[in-house]
Amino acid sequence: MPKADASTTLAELKAITAAFARERDWEQFHAPKNLSMAISAETAELMEYFLWVSAEESAAMCTKPEKKAKIEEELADVVILALQFANVAKIDVAAAIEAKIARNAAKYPVEKAKGRSDKYTEL
Amino acid sequence: MPKADASTTLAELKAITAAFARERDWEQFHAPKNLSMAISAETAELMEYFLWVSAEESAAMCTKPEKKAKIEEELADVVILALQFANVAKIDVAAAIEAKIARNAAKYPVEKAKGRSDKYTEL
Amino acid sequence: MPKADASTTLAELKAITAAFARERDWEQFHAPKNLSMAISAETAELMEYFLWVSAEESAAMCTKPEKKAKIEEELADVVILALQFANVAKIDVAAAIEAKIARNAAKYPVEKAKGRSDKYTEL
Amino acid sequence: MPKADASTTLAELKAITAAFARERDWEQFHAPKNLSMAISAETAELMEYFLWVSAEESAAMCTKPEKKAKIEEELADVVILALQFANVAKIDVAAAIEAKIARNAAKYPVEKAKGRSDKYTEL
Repeated sequence: MPKADASTTLAELKAITAAFARERDWEQFHAPKNLSMAISAETAELMEYFLWVSAEESAAMCTKPEKKAKIEEELADVVILALQFANVAKIDVAAAIEAKIARNAAKYPVEKAKGRSDKYTEL
Repeated sequence: MPKADASTTLAELKAITAAFARERDWEQFHAPKNLSMAISAETAELMEYFLWVSAEESAAMCTKPEKKAKIEEELADVVILALQFANVAKIDVAAAIEAKIARNAAKYPVEKAKGRSDKYTEL
Repeated sequence: MPKADASTTLAELKAITAAFARERDWEQFHAPKNLSMAISAETAELMEYFLWVSAEESAAMCTKPEKKAKIEEELADVVILALQFANVAKIDVAAAIEAKIARNAAKYPVEKAKGRSDKYTEL
Repeated sequence: MPKADASTTLAELKAITAAFARERDWEQFHAPKNLSMAISAETAELMEYFLWVSAEESAAMCTKPEKKAKIEEELADVVILALQFANVAKIDVAAAIEAKIARNAAKYPVEKAKGRSDKYTEL
């Protein structure tokens, strides 16, 4: 069955990512240091699509099938490497996100942060 | 029930992320351009833990509870923003990863890529 | 005499940067790999000032003395690390820039590139 | 006369960079926000050379003429964009670096920082 966000767990994606690396004997390269660099490098490839356009144009680009397909590939690379980082560092991503969202909610209470892009230290 | 990778779907995490932004009326800031920059900025915070250590030391850091807790937070921020990017750009992350892994497998066939870190163009 | 762009050579700034690292016995940490990560991390701190603002607002920020002072500090960190990279890798920055500008001019001839932000592969 | 670090001032390189953009009517794209993203994207291309190698191997790469030539090009792109940022934001790079080095020296006094890669907050 093809994967889809509605039914795929994080664990399933992490398993695919781990298997890909293991089959190629790439675990030797996948230290957290190296993977953090690789996430950054892939994120830069995503960012490159948007260097010289406005925020509005960047939103419009994501509605054009051909551009969207490429952007999707770059985002996939970012998340694949983030999941492989989680594999290596033994991080439960869903638990980490739940905890971080709770922390962010404390830093950015709705009544203070609503409609404002300021850093929490300046709210 | 607390979230865990074994049982949490991508859609659940995407919903949490979208709700957090919506409650704060932050959708106005979340153009793909801006989110790609934010993913990059958060990835840099993850990378900062590893700037001056060796690959081996970076692995050791992830086994120390106190350091690991911080690293986990940074990774969570990276994935939260990547999921919010997916929300905004209407990307099915699981499907995108499945497709990208298939593409990567074609670029890096096991028999050629095994144990090598070279780019596919140099294999 | 205080340094100023009009009179300071690249070699002078490279010497200051090298001395700073040498005095602290930091050369042991300054492998090209590590410095490339550090340039990236500092660039992210520069980028953070502009995450949620428009291009126009980012230009306006650079005219406000208090904000400009901070932005200036972040840019300085980026260039310091780039110069230290050049020290370590024995790169003559001025010569490298002159050569790269010539190359870029060939990739982006004025008559084709004028007023367009497209990548040279799409001109 | 060809440019070289020993004799070229920052102002000369900034002038070359500004002229390149002006001739192509690219100043309209060069908001600080966009340039900060571009510096980050170019830094990622530099970093990509070092993703999977050790610190020692990264140093060795910079001694091989063919690899070094490519690395040099990437570093040049980083510095070109940083100088163009300085042009746009009206930053005197040499003065900013001199001031930042003084600040860094206060944060990292030689007697405390010698031989240590810790952040100043942990010295």
